[in-house]
Amino acid sequence: MTETKKVAIIVSEGSFDKGIMAMMIANTAASMGMEVHIFFTFFGLNLLKKGSKPKLKGMYRLFTGTFVKRMSKVGIPQFGEQLSMAIDQGVTIYACSTSMELMGIKKENMIDGAKIVGAAGFLNIAADTDMQYFIG
Amino acid sequence: MTETKKVAIIVSEGSFDKGIMAMMIANTAASMGMEVHIFFTFFGLNLLKKGSKPKLKGMYRLFTGTFVKRMSKVGIPQFGEQLSMAIDQGVTIYACSTSMELMGIKKENMIDGAKIVGAAGFLNIAADTDMQYFIG
Amino acid sequence: MTETKKVAIIVSEGSFDKGIMAMMIANTAASMGMEVHIFFTFFGLNLLKKGSKPKLKGMYRLFTGTFVKRMSKVGIPQFGEQLSMAIDQGVTIYACSTSMELMGIKKENMIDGAKIVGAAGFLNIAADTDMQYFIG
Repeated sequence: MTETKKVAIIVSEGSFDKGIMAMMIANTAASMGMEVHIFFTFFGLNLLKKGSKPKLKGMYRLFTGTFVKRMSKVGIPQFGEQLSMAIDQGVTIYACSTSMELMGIKKENMIDGAKIVGAAGFLNIAADTDMQYFIG
Repeated sequence: MTETKKVAIIVSEGSFDKGIMAMMIANTAASMGMEVHIFFTFFGLNLLKKGSKPKLKGMYRLFTGTFVKRMSKVGIPQFGEQLSMAIDQGVTIYACSTSMELMGIKKENMIDGAKIVGAAGFLNIAADTDMQYFIG
Repeated sequence: MTETKKVAIIVSEGSFDKGIMAMMIANTAASMGMEVHIFFTFFGLNLLKKGSKPKLKGMYRLFTGTFVKRMSKVGIPQFGEQLSMAIDQGVTIYACSTSMELMGIKKENMIDGAKIVGAAGFLNIAADTDMQYFIG
């Protein structure tokens, strides 16, 4: 009998690449039967806005569209689709309550299904996981 | 009887957002009774300079002041205050010895209370923690 | 009898500083007798190209040369040398198979000795390590 492995991810940046990395780790881990928890905080909270279309950073911003097309050619879905997949696979999505206040993002502006917690609530969960990743 | 949970954080960037993220994780964990160790290395070492006032990255640099004000409205203290709080709460702060040489930062230019260690010294501590985060 | 500590690192950025950080953690851990696994994915995969000479990010790009010189003065080798050292020390280097397709990087364009695996293969290894770091 093997124990279910657990992963905790903190996402603090709202850029395309960071969003995609978080989703790829989350969806891969979930498809392997792992329990996955992702906390979106600071600029990362923007990724949970309804219809969020994150962009690459800085001067690469303009190339996001080209990159999305290249990704779709090798079978990697867009950020929004991957976020839905994650939720469907049972990944738990957390929105940082302090960041909601800081960024002026309300519950109704965010995707359905995100749990609102503080940093303490998330660290309490993360402390009992096998892997932790800070993506920011 | 529950064991004290331990956290190890490596900070390799000196930007405002990375400094704040490190402090928020550290102070939250410490307030929950966890043992927290933070290693400031590479550009991250700049955060330990006396009176350090980190800025947002790239083109967002100019908006740091506005952001600090917004943070203070929702009750999040500035970086310097959070660093003092962390030390008061018993968080151990480490300055990377190799980075001090590389960046030309001397002991007397840094805040009081930072322990000077090499990467090996820190990894030795981190290897026995429950959570590790690389913030960079 | 102490157990061998294990470290898993994911590198998703191809910049100079991220490459160096990954190598310094990897080489330090390996020299302490730890077992080290590094997964190069997304933009990070560029670091595995033959003769890769990563640059600092954004407007700091032009200062990479100056920085490399400063590093060499304090005895920190360049990225390429550190990568060779890592392999010599027994660090296992993994290239993300999906990223190879996405970035159009072929096996023959990469350094010798990189193992090609998918994200699932790497997470399977990382789930049984003592430390995990996401460098991106």
